[in-house]
Amino acid sequence: MHDLKCSEREKTIARRVFEAALQQELGEVMATFKEKAALAEKPDDMWAVEGWLAQRRHDIDNKYDFRYSQLVMVFGKLLREGRITEQQLEGLGEDKLSYIEHIATL
Amino acid sequence: MHDLKCSEREKTIARRVFEAALQQELGEVMATFKEKAALAEKPDDMWAVEGWLAQRRHDIDNKYDFRYSQLVMVFGKLLREGRITEQQLEGLGEDKLSYIEHIATL
Repeated sequence: MHDLKCSEREKTIARRVFEAALQQELGEVMATFKEKAALAEKPDDMWAVEGWLAQRRHDIDNKYDFRYSQLVMVFGKLLREGRITEQQLEGLGEDKLSYIEHIATL
Repeated sequence: MHDLKCSEREKTIARRVFEAALQQELGEVMATFKEKAALAEKPDDMWAVEGWLAQRRHDIDNKYDFRYSQLVMVFGKLLREGRITEQQLEGLGEDKLSYIEHIATL
């Protein structure tokens, strides 16, 4: 992470927190997608869902980048969005937590 | 149409047949879209719906081209697909009908 070395334990925690946040967000997108599809009345509503979904996929692909070099940034953003908590990150080194918390405040 | 002159009456018929086929096909896509969305269980199912919908939009944009120069071709394909009938085209000149029927057999 960000030129910080990661222990195996930290990698395990990072993977778990990352996956939980990703699955949570995918679940939210799924629920909204189904709702939008059910409410669509006109073809234009349907094409709007398509555009919205393509944008969500793009956002998620960009946001959830599990390269160790990117994880401090990823977790910082997720913390800022309230998608993860500081408790979930317990077990990561103080150096990483400090970076993550800093990024969350930006 | 295809270097064939169109009377106002023919243009009216062409517009009506074209719109009816387009709305019918859009309705079918809408129904399938809603069904696929309702059945989606995993995020991959949702992304598959997005890809399918983008392809349908692309196909429909290509197929329904209301330039008079293209209508003989468009109606020929729609007739071949069973999306319009020869009865609906009654009132178009024999020259156009003959081209349309020929294209429908290709």
